[in-house]
Amino acid sequence: MKPQMIRVGLLGFGTVGVGVFRMMRDNADSITRHIGFPATITRIGVHDLSKPREFAFAGLTDDLQSIVNDPEIDVIIEVIGGVSPARELIETALNNKKHVITANKELIAKHGAALMKKAAGHSLDLHFEAAVGGGIPLVQPLKHQLAGNDVLKMMGILNGTTNYILTQMAEKKQSLDVALKEAQELGYAEADPTSDVEGFDAQYKLAILSTIAFSQEIPVDEVYREGIMKITADDIHFARILGYRIKILGIVEAFPEGILARVHPVLLPRRFPLANVHDVYNAVQIRGDFVGDVILSGRGAGSAPTASSVIGDLIDVGRNIRLGGAGNVTMPESDGLPLLPIEKLETAYYLRMLVDDQPKVLGSIATRLGEYGVSLSAMEMRVVSEKDKIGEIVFLTHICNEGMFRKAISVLESEPVVKEICSWIRVES
Amino acid sequence: MKPQMIRVGLLGFGTVGVGVFRMMRDNADSITRHIGFPATITRIGVHDLSKPREFAFAGLTDDLQSIVNDPEIDVIIEVIGGVSPARELIETALNNKKHVITANKELIAKHGAALMKKAAGHSLDLHFEAAVGGGIPLVQPLKHQLAGNDVLKMMGILNGTTNYILTQMAEKKQSLDVALKEAQELGYAEADPTSDVEGFDAQYKLAILSTIAFSQEIPVDEVYREGIMKITADDIHFARILGYRIKILGIVEAFPEGILARVHPVLLPRRFPLANVHDVYNAVQIRGDFVGDVILSGRGAGSAPTASSVIGDLIDVGRNIRLGGAGNVTMPESDGLPLLPIEKLETAYYLRMLVDDQPKVLGSIATRLGEYGVSLSAMEMRVVSEKDKIGEIVFLTHICNEGMFRKAISVLESEPVVKEICSWIRVES
Repeated sequence: MKPQMIRVGLLGFGTVGVGVFRMMRDNADSITRHIGFPATITRIGVHDLSKPREFAFAGLTDDLQSIVNDPEIDVIIEVIGGVSPARELIETALNNKKHVITANKELIAKHGAALMKKAAGHSLDLHFEAAVGGGIPLVQPLKHQLAGNDVLKMMGILNGTTNYILTQMAEKKQSLDVALKEAQELGYAEADPTSDVEGFDAQYKLAILSTIAFSQEIPVDEVYREGIMKITADDIHFARILGYRIKILGIVEAFPEGILARVHPVLLPRRFPLANVHDVYNAVQIRGDFVGDVILSGRGAGSAPTASSVIGDLIDVGRNIRLGGAGNVTMPESDGLPLLPIEKLETAYYLRMLVDDQPKVLGSIATRLGEYGVSLSAMEMRVVSEKDKIGEIVFLTHICNEGMFRKAISVLESEPVVKEICSWIRVES
Repeated sequence: MKPQMIRVGLLGFGTVGVGVFRMMRDNADSITRHIGFPATITRIGVHDLSKPREFAFAGLTDDLQSIVNDPEIDVIIEVIGGVSPARELIETALNNKKHVITANKELIAKHGAALMKKAAGHSLDLHFEAAVGGGIPLVQPLKHQLAGNDVLKMMGILNGTTNYILTQMAEKKQSLDVALKEAQELGYAEADPTSDVEGFDAQYKLAILSTIAFSQEIPVDEVYREGIMKITADDIHFARILGYRIKILGIVEAFPEGILARVHPVLLPRRFPLANVHDVYNAVQIRGDFVGDVILSGRGAGSAPTASSVIGDLIDVGRNIRLGGAGNVTMPESDGLPLLPIEKLETAYYLRMLVDDQPKVLGSIATRLGEYGVSLSAMEMRVVSEKDKIGEIVFLTHICNEGMFRKAISVLESEPVVKEICSWIRVES
């Protein structure tokens, strides 16, 4: 007999868990209509029972293992985050023939392929739309509506905290420290902001999206990563003068030799759609061989948007329970392309340095760069100190090879006329 | 026994049909990997066998009925367009237990609810992602990832031809006639552009999206419709001065009293995301009660983007054939809200008129408007003819009721000081 109700075990009752709870309560009618019968949370597992809660709930327990072993439960929603104990709990749930929905980007980035395999082996659904881009439909459109395309390139603003900080720096001419502090006060950044500002969060998300897009496991450790801590108000100033905005992007591209996935700050021409995505918003631009460019954007985090994606997954799981067809979004395994190191990248660069303000300096630097195949496309200069004869030069280069560019930089660092290489940032063109 | 191959009958071999054919050929490997076994076009039905074709195909026939009756065929892809004979062919296909994928917006807008019901009754898939927004994932994200939300408002640039024309008028300061003629020369507009420029195409698409978003049939005739033919270079000029761009949008909103769906030109503040979607691109902004604003954008038409959506649907149908679960996206029937007439709209307006250039005229017009609850928020004036003492006035109003605004306009038309009501356009704020 088909079940007349879906019983959900919720692991985690923090920001996202409360959002899921609220949405299942407030929108119960439409969720029931979409699935074909009701879905209800029967048990909630938390770490600390004594913590004050926004909502009273009779089925609260700190014995999370008992939930994933509860034979009455059909679906586990995991919103604890982190690898352990989430991984063991989900594995047990799958072994116990429960469908799983998770918002856990770190877990899916690190162990998603193995978990998907296990779910498919049991003909179970394992959905994780909420793990990337909060409320934006991203993972499932890549698996379904866009799946016929060969993905050529994908680039996205995947972290709302850093996008907020960079937006504030640009609009209010703030330093990074000040913007970060304000983001923390507003609750947009954690007390320990490492995961956001060092790019780990975006690295997890890019690994997940790339794995789906290229139908092969993209190990998170092979996604190149740089954070935003080195970005200064000066860089944002010069970027603006040159017609660019600075964003931190996750970018993945397929080349004949392999796949290159990377997270780092980028100068984006102001007319690019992603250059106009501000504050905590996320957006991903997907280039497919047939579809061309598609851009999906919205709120990338927060209780309600994340709940929206979790509940979308729950509706799919519910329909599959009612009509059959669970486990139908297993990860296809294509012939694996090698992952390319960052040194293989071909891109343009922004380069800012302090130099002796004297004749022939510019020529000697340009000559040195040219020896490594780096040619210049634009330049800005200003005198920093008349007394000490120090000038600041900003270059934009034509597209060149990253390995060669890095060699050129290390050579320039030991040139007597170069006082300091202040920063260099890749340019998307 | 599970089928080892999906046999597709393709109805129509024009622009979209050729795109589908090419994509199934070029991306056969990845389509096979995603479905789990190969999909192949076994027969193609066309109206005129003698027409020269880009691709030779042995299974070409002008007996379309024989394709939907062919017991060897599992899936019908219909890309003929128009209601007849597409409707009868699809009904026969469903009666013959074939899954159906269509890109036919007119058919789905007018008869989609009945066809979905028939498909669900036979546990068959009926997919139409390509009917709205070309390659942009829209229909399925509304049915799945966003389905847990109550949709509060949805607005979109749904027609690439008119967006191209309005973009050209704004950027090149062209008249509508010139921009339309250029669009026709470039193949962006049909020889008979009625369906695009009068808003029928957008009306179909908005009816489809609204039906999905509100889980109730939104009859296409109850979607208010105005085209772009009345938009002049003067309107675009004044809109720019006032900080706006003119776009033609499909907008649907849920109010406590009912649903209001409408297609018409709109002044959009320049900072709005949709105001920055140009040329032939489409974009839809969906506001859900939990997800907030999500924007999905991309190429809204063309052979390859449309094929991308058709093949995405085919991959879903194929997975369902392999694993079960077909027919799981039936249209839920919610308690129907009434459809509201345009007179119930509350919005702001742009109003341009020619008046006697004499003292007190402005005051008398403002007073007259005020009698109908229409108050002003901004004004621009210029003298058109010093000799005849004719001035041109442009007003922006605060939000007011459309029924009252229309009454005010008809009263103004008979005021002696008003020479001509040149145009009025709704303003999104």
